[in-house]
Amino acid sequence: MSVDRSGFMRRAIELSRTRLAAGEGGPFGAVVVKDGRIIGEGWNQVVGTNDPTAHAEIVAIRAACRHLGNFSLAGAELYTSCEPCPMCLAATLWARIEGIFYGNTRDDAAAIGFDDEYFYREVMLPLGERQLRAIRLLPDEARAVFTEWAAGSDRVKY
Amino acid sequence: MSVDRSGFMRRAIELSRTRLAAGEGGPFGAVVVKDGRIIGEGWNQVVGTNDPTAHAEIVAIRAACRHLGNFSLAGAELYTSCEPCPMCLAATLWARIEGIFYGNTRDDAAAIGFDDEYFYREVMLPLGERQLRAIRLLPDEARAVFTEWAAGSDRVKY
Repeated sequence: MSVDRSGFMRRAIELSRTRLAAGEGGPFGAVVVKDGRIIGEGWNQVVGTNDPTAHAEIVAIRAACRHLGNFSLAGAELYTSCEPCPMCLAATLWARIEGIFYGNTRDDAAAIGFDDEYFYREVMLPLGERQLRAIRLLPDEARAVFTEWAAGSDRVKY
Repeated sequence: MSVDRSGFMRRAIELSRTRLAAGEGGPFGAVVVKDGRIIGEGWNQVVGTNDPTAHAEIVAIRAACRHLGNFSLAGAELYTSCEPCPMCLAATLWARIEGIFYGNTRDDAAAIGFDDEYFYREVMLPLGERQLRAIRLLPDEARAVFTEWAAGSDRVKY
């Protein structure tokens, strides 16, 4: 099967442009492809929906999962107009997507005022060294639930 | 104002336990707190909703944003029964949350079979060295939309 990778990327870029004109959020578009067909599309809707997690990739992944009725996108690929931020990259991993194609880079995004590059640096720092402080509380009470989970035999792996 | 940090964490842990019993997903709960009050609650719903992004923290952040009618949670704190995975940590950053309290660690999560620690390692690797391959396509066409965005004067910063 010949795969039209440029065609899928052009669709992601097209979503980044036309939706930008609608004022819903930043200039980002994405599509999820499986078996040679687009099964989910997304564009940035942070401002339009008041949802800071509504990045193009997250929206496309959720749409593809709805389409398949499955939380796994194993065998699928993500085409995104810009290199995913750490949130979207990790979402891609959780969704078990098997390849990413991107147009702009995180540096291109930084150059027009987005914080992707800064957030990558924060995520890479040890927990105690980040600007966003994190404090541990009630570890024993929290761990008791993990123990309960581990003891269960009917857990669905995701 | 005296803040009941333990009380908020207990609520996050309670959500991790009671919803676990409902079989909707993994043993994770979270609450977003602002001005001494819970404004959003979440629990893992990956399996129940077929949404790989429906982690406790993401669900809580989206709920809090709906509550406020705002994509910014500046001034808010996140209480989560487990250290956030990279997806949820970056979502916390995008939401401009100003502090994280957590119970279990990423190592605790790894010990019961979750991939948080592996995903942290993937996110930290340079793009070309990850197991999840990423290939650049059509950079000039993608960048043209960024240029268009940068030229606009009415963009809402998020």
